[in-house]
Amino acid sequence: MAEKNPKKKLEEFGNNIVDDIELSKNPKFITAVRSRSNISYDEKKGYLKLGSSKEERSFMNVSQTKRFMQTIAIASKCHKFVSENLHTTIRGLFYQLKFGLGEDIDENIFSEQAESNPLIEDLEVALNLKREDLNLNANRKGILAGNMRVIDRFGDEKIEIDASKQGRSGWPIPSDVDNDIEFVDIKAKYALVVEKDTLWQRLNEDKFWKKQNAILISPQGQASRGTRRLLNKLSSAGLPIYVFNDCDAWGWYIYWTIKTGSMNLAYIGPEIASPQAKFIGVTMADLEHYDFLKNLTMKATDVDLKRAQEMLNYPWINRHKEWEEELKKVIKLKLKLEQDSLQAPRLTFVDDYIIEKIKNNDFLP
Amino acid sequence: MAEKNPKKKLEEFGNNIVDDIELSKNPKFITAVRSRSNISYDEKKGYLKLGSSKEERSFMNVSQTKRFMQTIAIASKCHKFVSENLHTTIRGLFYQLKFGLGEDIDENIFSEQAESNPLIEDLEVALNLKREDLNLNANRKGILAGNMRVIDRFGDEKIEIDASKQGRSGWPIPSDVDNDIEFVDIKAKYALVVEKDTLWQRLNEDKFWKKQNAILISPQGQASRGTRRLLNKLSSAGLPIYVFNDCDAWGWYIYWTIKTGSMNLAYIGPEIASPQAKFIGVTMADLEHYDFLKNLTMKATDVDLKRAQEMLNYPWINRHKEWEEELKKVIKLKLKLEQDSLQAPRLTFVDDYIIEKIKNNDFLP
Repeated sequence: MAEKNPKKKLEEFGNNIVDDIELSKNPKFITAVRSRSNISYDEKKGYLKLGSSKEERSFMNVSQTKRFMQTIAIASKCHKFVSENLHTTIRGLFYQLKFGLGEDIDENIFSEQAESNPLIEDLEVALNLKREDLNLNANRKGILAGNMRVIDRFGDEKIEIDASKQGRSGWPIPSDVDNDIEFVDIKAKYALVVEKDTLWQRLNEDKFWKKQNAILISPQGQASRGTRRLLNKLSSAGLPIYVFNDCDAWGWYIYWTIKTGSMNLAYIGPEIASPQAKFIGVTMADLEHYDFLKNLTMKATDVDLKRAQEMLNYPWINRHKEWEEELKKVIKLKLKLEQDSLQAPRLTFVDDYIIEKIKNNDFLP
Repeated sequence: MAEKNPKKKLEEFGNNIVDDIELSKNPKFITAVRSRSNISYDEKKGYLKLGSSKEERSFMNVSQTKRFMQTIAIASKCHKFVSENLHTTIRGLFYQLKFGLGEDIDENIFSEQAESNPLIEDLEVALNLKREDLNLNANRKGILAGNMRVIDRFGDEKIEIDASKQGRSGWPIPSDVDNDIEFVDIKAKYALVVEKDTLWQRLNEDKFWKKQNAILISPQGQASRGTRRLLNKLSSAGLPIYVFNDCDAWGWYIYWTIKTGSMNLAYIGPEIASPQAKFIGVTMADLEHYDFLKNLTMKATDVDLKRAQEMLNYPWINRHKEWEEELKKVIKLKLKLEQDSLQAPRLTFVDDYIIEKIKNNDFLP
């Protein structure tokens, strides 16, 4: 990652445009097509990725002139952020663009953020960088505890964070775990992802991660880009990734997004998917093994059932007969289960449930 | 808070019921009416609170028998949680109740969580405790950095957290900042609340809290019970509380909830309101002082306008002529402003904006 120097890349990008202009050539750059037609599932690698279709963006194409100019404005702002070593968000960037470009350009070239967002992606793909490299923070979410230490390069300080000493609060996963964070020591044997923060708190209180030598992570709902990138890095470091979610549309979606990536982030698929991830539960099969759960089911909603049906059509899901069975069971029984229900017999039951599943390799792929 | 011993209180509660039964008396307990009719704004203290109306819950009242029994079941479960020194949520409690009560009680006495939630409040009020005292974690949200140290009583460990050494991540505010957290050292001069986590990150990156000797908090949207309780404690410790939110329905709501509490939590009003809080902005008046903002306004939505109108009718708001003016300006101009827009001239402009406001005592009350 270190050799990716975003500042240099942005300068190269700008210099190429200037060169084109000075040579009276049509200024242009190449980006990748990000529409569905160019997104595919890589069966061998196990994630959603962009295909090879490219698009040219050029200044002398009337239908592209405005967007071309807008993209240059974005690149210029990002160059400033990177040079200043300051971060903002795509919203903050939008306001800077709306404020104006200075240097005699009085034009108001942006009116809605919907205009700037896809152009940021154009630029990310054209430069082979993530927006985090351009000092654009994404929504951060996700919490972590476990036998792991990192260095947080926080401005002029280097702050060591020991994720085993964060108490009940845990360590909030930053937006950018590449440029800002250095992983110095990962002692744990596996990472456990727990959909809900409340269950994470339950397990953290039991010091599950200490007893199991694990890293305990909650994405706190859908996983942020930063959390997905962190899981990818842990997976690359050889740690198994186990996911413990609700047995419903949302829980499945969170799992598959972690495992194979997602359509809208297919352009960074290789960096944020963790194809080796396994699904611990909650599953419909649990109903047979844990008798008390029969009394704790809920009716599946139309959304759950529709989602289960859709998932049966995705090639990256229906290639696993275990998932096919699971989803068909949901559709047949019209039931759902929450991970919270595993606290029912006693609060610490959820610990034993997870430990037993891992011991028996009792996962969905 | 320490003398509140929840375990003893729960045992006393149970013993009183047993005594009634043994004396062939009708078992009962007293709680407070929590309907709107018993909620009022305390002008002197500056928060929403419950009035003096009480209600009796008794076993021999046919319309109350089931709920009485349910409340006893809740008290019994909470007694177990407190004795075990383990926490769960009101959802986890519900599953335990649904699982069954053991000891020959085979009855399924709960079907929906909507049944248990109000009974938990009954119990909180009857025992003069918060649910956090009963080891029921509420949704935790909120992040903090600044010159402050706490001890986290984390099971058998005492973990010192230095909120000035949490790097870009910050310290997540726990659900219970009374029983679990000991404030050992608050050096800061004031607390700044910033509605959005993205703006909190912006200010944290600039080490705003270090330069200003402040505590920098984001509730990350609406403030959780824990964050409101923490602000109340900081306010009680003599720190001014400044709030920096969007100029829209949601931003105002977050502010007023922090300042005066809310209807549904009026029963713990004195513990979670911070009546001394001041509103830094963003305000409509800023449009006159910061010329660039004129180009960065958005159209107020119907929700914003309706909310502004409603707020003009609340006695705790319309008693402040500054707020009356502000809200009338919103209704007249039909505009809103985001705090993000203050990054427009340069990313660090937002720091200067806040510092100037505080220097000039330029707040809404």
